[in-house]
Amino acid sequence: MSRIVILGAGVMGSALAVPAADQGNEVVLVGSPLDDHIIAALKAGCEHPTLRCRLADSIKPVSNAALTVEQLATADTIVIGVSSPGIDWAVGRLLDANANPSILTLVTKGLVAAEGKVLTYADVLPRKMGRALPQLVGIGGPCIARELALGYPTRVTYASADIASAKRLRDQLQSQSYRIQVSDDVVGVEACAALKNFLCIGVSAMMSAHALDESHAKNPVAALYNQAVLELALLSDWIRGQPAHSPGVAFDLAGMGDLHVTVGGGRNSRLGQHLGEGHSLQKILTGSMQGITVEGVDTGRQLGEALRRACQTGKLAAGSLPLTLAILDCIEQNVAFALDFTRLPG
Amino acid sequence: MSRIVILGAGVMGSALAVPAADQGNEVVLVGSPLDDHIIAALKAGCEHPTLRCRLADSIKPVSNAALTVEQLATADTIVIGVSSPGIDWAVGRLLDANANPSILTLVTKGLVAAEGKVLTYADVLPRKMGRALPQLVGIGGPCIARELALGYPTRVTYASADIASAKRLRDQLQSQSYRIQVSDDVVGVEACAALKNFLCIGVSAMMSAHALDESHAKNPVAALYNQAVLELALLSDWIRGQPAHSPGVAFDLAGMGDLHVTVGGGRNSRLGQHLGEGHSLQKILTGSMQGITVEGVDTGRQLGEALRRACQTGKLAAGSLPLTLAILDCIEQNVAFALDFTRLPG
Repeated sequence: MSRIVILGAGVMGSALAVPAADQGNEVVLVGSPLDDHIIAALKAGCEHPTLRCRLADSIKPVSNAALTVEQLATADTIVIGVSSPGIDWAVGRLLDANANPSILTLVTKGLVAAEGKVLTYADVLPRKMGRALPQLVGIGGPCIARELALGYPTRVTYASADIASAKRLRDQLQSQSYRIQVSDDVVGVEACAALKNFLCIGVSAMMSAHALDESHAKNPVAALYNQAVLELALLSDWIRGQPAHSPGVAFDLAGMGDLHVTVGGGRNSRLGQHLGEGHSLQKILTGSMQGITVEGVDTGRQLGEALRRACQTGKLAAGSLPLTLAILDCIEQNVAFALDFTRLPG
Repeated sequence: MSRIVILGAGVMGSALAVPAADQGNEVVLVGSPLDDHIIAALKAGCEHPTLRCRLADSIKPVSNAALTVEQLATADTIVIGVSSPGIDWAVGRLLDANANPSILTLVTKGLVAAEGKVLTYADVLPRKMGRALPQLVGIGGPCIARELALGYPTRVTYASADIASAKRLRDQLQSQSYRIQVSDDVVGVEACAALKNFLCIGVSAMMSAHALDESHAKNPVAALYNQAVLELALLSDWIRGQPAHSPGVAFDLAGMGDLHVTVGGGRNSRLGQHLGEGHSLQKILTGSMQGITVEGVDTGRQLGEALRRACQTGKLAAGSLPLTLAILDCIEQNVAFALDFTRLPG
């Protein structure tokens, strides 16, 4: 039994509370300053408003205002369960409490351009915290939050440079249906988790670009899904700065598995489908998806400059990245998505 | 311009005639003895009955009875376009004509148990023909026949031990939308093409086993899709007798790409969805799918004995193949499909 504090009561942070509580841990679910309505609903015994299900009574909902320094300082495991705009709030709370839990884990996904490079949160978080974080565990793999909360089976990856940390967190959270593989490639897992949102945009465009019968043609989706995984592998190796042990995490749960579930569901896929209809990004983000954060777009914006430079200097081969470059063109130049299949490598 | 004869006027043989004719080749589409109604429909200018589209007038439909020895003997390229039950008819016609085309290619997918091993058609065909076939080209990758015939884009793999043969066939058939990668791993491609039908059965079971909202949970499908590709890689290496150059064809179009399109469409997926509802194989094959050939089941039957022996002798690790073994249990022991997620490797 461990004391687990989850910072952020959005869908993913809250969903992780479910296996954590089911395994008998003491779980505190903390709302960010934007989550007060969620905490209020949970305290009133109502459904979680965005997960659309009730959480176990043993999960203790706590608002940001009510969270104490002691709760953070005495936690065995702290989960940063926010999306990227909430990361500074979570880090601020950790620093204020001088928290140094045995395990710090990260649901937040994204890339950050810094010093001409592209960093994952496995690199960004220690910088923000001002110290090394050997106990940091990244999470990847196919995991729609609502399905996790409802107990549907899946299998995910926990990754840490210190694999013993990944195993300890696995032992705290693994259940009969929530299965956990461990890896020491935390940067690779974090890179895949961010990049899959970005690449999903181009794959999903194929779901609307080629109508057939009452649905759409499946060959173009599968061909670009395949291409997306190949590009994920190249890009995650580049971000890591070295090739993964082959076949590596891109060809496993954090890459190919998570991309499978991401295409067809969620905001990144929805944006991609609008692009596949021929609309420009700007039109979509000021129209039907106004005000909605699309993580894959943010990832692309962080990625673009360093990636184009890496192509120019030969660190990456542009010819191997036609899907990446086509999506970047949409994001950076506001052109319609157009991937000429003749650009796919021979 | 080449003279291309396609043996078998089923969906896949007929669909390949479309890019072949579009690229200006002289194309003869030959019906097997079971395809007389198809050839009659095409000669009458009607739609292809199973592809549900018209073929170009430049494609010459010929019945088995009307096919001449000379047409086979003078072909540059011969495509064996039948499914596995038709292979002996195709081989018989080739032997009768003493045909020795520059390129012989194979759409037929399956495995054959022989001498305690499991062989692909890349090994079976030379034995049936009584001579080495360096010009043999195998085809893999995501390619629903009707979509190919209608010109929707995709990307596939042509593989030959003599890669120059694969390149020559690519140069005959590649179009703006039908993109072709070449590989020298013909046994790996053939193994993946057969195994993906078999593994698709277990992945597709997840589409009916976990209903959610108006559809089904997506995490279990993605987790088993991922597992299926990992097992495809192990099994295709075992069938090849040596590890592929990593990441290899299993993690590319012939494996992960083709499996993506196979889950959710076709007979193998339909069978898997029935299994996921809790029915036994025997009940399905004597009930709603009576009389329908399910290639993945035949592949499993050919695979089972040698695979279990390989697990006993340690050539394969049973613990790495939980999906394969769960599907085999359905086929060999008629039990309901049940994959306990705790059996997935840690």
